Amino acid sequence: MYSWYGFNKVRIRSNYNLEEQLTDISSSLRTVEWKNNKVVMIDQTKLPNELVFVEYDDFNQIADAIRTLVVRGAPAIGVSGAFGLGLAVLQSKATTKDELILDLEKAKQILFETRPTAVNLAWGLEKIMKVANSGDSVEQIRKLVISAAKKMAEDDIEINKTMGKNGSILFDDNDTIMTHCNAGALATVAYGTALGVIRATRESGKNVKIIATETRPIQQGSRLTAFELKHDGFDVTLIPDTAVGYSMANGLVNKVIVGADRIVKTGHVFNKIGTYQVATMAKQHGIPFYVAAPLSTIDLETKAEDVIIEMRKGTEVTGIGDKKTAPDGINVINPAFDMTPPELISGIITEKGVATAPYEESIPKLFEDT
Amino acid sequence: MYSWYGFNKVRIRSNYNLEEQLTDISSSLRTVEWKNNKVVMIDQTKLPNELVFVEYDDFNQIADAIRTLVVRGAPAIGVSGAFGLGLAVLQSKATTKDELILDLEKAKQILFETRPTAVNLAWGLEKIMKVANSGDSVEQIRKLVISAAKKMAEDDIEINKTMGKNGSILFDDNDTIMTHCNAGALATVAYGTALGVIRATRESGKNVKIIATETRPIQQGSRLTAFELKHDGFDVTLIPDTAVGYSMANGLVNKVIVGADRIVKTGHVFNKIGTYQVATMAKQHGIPFYVAAPLSTIDLETKAEDVIIEMRKGTEVTGIGDKKTAPDGINVINPAFDMTPPELISGIITEKGVATAPYEESIPKLFEDT
Repeated sequence: MYSWYGFNKVRIRSNYNLEEQLTDISSSLRTVEWKNNKVVMIDQTKLPNELVFVEYDDFNQIADAIRTLVVRGAPAIGVSGAFGLGLAVLQSKATTKDELILDLEKAKQILFETRPTAVNLAWGLEKIMKVANSGDSVEQIRKLVISAAKKMAEDDIEINKTMGKNGSILFDDNDTIMTHCNAGALATVAYGTALGVIRATRESGKNVKIIATETRPIQQGSRLTAFELKHDGFDVTLIPDTAVGYSMANGLVNKVIVGADRIVKTGHVFNKIGTYQVATMAKQHGIPFYVAAPLSTIDLETKAEDVIIEMRKGTEVTGIGDKKTAPDGINVINPAFDMTPPELISGIITEKGVATAPYEESIPKLFEDT
Repeated sequence: MYSWYGFNKVRIRSNYNLEEQLTDISSSLRTVEWKNNKVVMIDQTKLPNELVFVEYDDFNQIADAIRTLVVRGAPAIGVSGAFGLGLAVLQSKATTKDELILDLEKAKQILFETRPTAVNLAWGLEKIMKVANSGDSVEQIRKLVISAAKKMAEDDIEINKTMGKNGSILFDDNDTIMTHCNAGALATVAYGTALGVIRATRESGKNVKIIATETRPIQQGSRLTAFELKHDGFDVTLIPDTAVGYSMANGLVNKVIVGADRIVKTGHVFNKIGTYQVATMAKQHGIPFYVAAPLSTIDLETKAEDVIIEMRKGTEVTGIGDKKTAPDGINVINPAFDMTPPELISGIITEKGVATAPYEESIPKLFEDT
């Protein structure tokens, strides 16, 4: 289990009311967890300076947390959405099944609209709604929903571990692996997708080093990836996003692995802004470029050209925290994601195996025995 | 002449002693200027939040200013180096030519060692040393050196304007031009190299828009390029460095233009870290990629593989100002420059015309009638 051994004490902040207390932390922390009918999350906006846990009992708070990046990463927001519906069944004052389903549909819509690109959120919400609809009474639906959401979190860890093992065979002893953004423990319930493969590679006895890109504008690479890998004892080096080409041209990188927010049937991968140029540079230098994601990230229905790329506010780019780094009133283009075409991708690592080109054939096959 | 019409009052800080005063500014400010036997520079580390001028009377202060990026940009540090020698002739207590040349050699060495990659600094220093050696008496050398340094600054502006005209024919009405880092008025004495071409394009009656990359880790794109173009009334949009591929893939960019810190005879261009990947993405999308630089940036002697890439300290990447964005003690690779190979470059714009492939033939030709 992934452990946060850099911290002994952490702050718990409840319900945004800033009542904070120090508490001992166990060695098996999770990014998002269901605990005593509440949802506890690491506030990722505070990392790497502070490890703060926030506790929610209202699904609207979960929606806020997703929107403001307290929690991010496709698998983590999928489980968070499911937990949001778990809170919604507890909050609902419905006395009939129909009333409860109506309340859940409203909560689902609010949770769904927080972030449009990652497919896991929609997947998690739909899965829970199906479970809710299968129940007969209000009380039964409550139990079914909460138990399904908790199982989704447990499954996430198991899926990541299987994915890690499947991917680890692609990496060699003494590889230096570049990764972009954070597809780690912090992007999932625990263990991680891309970083899960890196963890599994080490667990299989191979020694690997990691180069993490900063990942502007939100700096998930320096704030989260460098943080979680360093605390796990990996040899990790940070570079600015501008130094991807330099690092590859100078032979510092053997392989690249990233996560994904949505993968469509043709193998087009939607992931953190900047992924496309990392993949292009890798191709130019003959460096294998892998994507690690669970089946819940694969969207067999939508065409690449129909995927909505979330545009975020310009202030993420015009400064960092209070530090202003651009002139007032400047125009900004700030897309959260970009699209990497299949011809740049050496393999897509999932819990059901590794898909390779032609993806239009290999991706649907992953679903055949599920 | 380039004017700073965003500011009416500016602060002048003398000799680092923080005695600051407000003063009216004229409409023809320069990045670096010789004034009453002192050197006045815009402190670029304070932009875009404050326009502060610093005044130096010691060549060691000029060396510090170059090292700490108070002044940066290949042509601007070339002229700054020359001005440094101008201060050195005034500071020297030498009574004979030999003593003065010895003092100047010492000053030259200190100035030269500040930044290894841009060739203009060495070029400016050598040019002034040649002038110094041509003098007979201490008094004559003083006059010759100061007058040559001042002429170098005037020439820089004229060269940029000629380069601008030469380059402007490559750009079309309604082009959106991407630029990386700052190769503008702030990288030169005034007008700029890459941004000089953009200014000349507008002056020729064509309407152009600009996309400026942030340019981590020092953010010359958001702090300097966005600032000077916005204040000059251009339509400029800022993007994070990670959104270069997105912008090109979505048809938002027609052409790219950047400056250079050193160009070797084979057409390999050394410029701000990240240039190589911008050029690669441009090639992938069939977007012309131009470099604008004066002949003083071209180094006919050194081979590409022998150019030293300056490595800067990790703290530039692990935070911004006081804001820490990476875990303590993280390893960092922070190269200031990278190399773009000639096959990615559509043309090198100089004051003597535009060189195109094969560069090994076209670059030496630029020097033929000079």
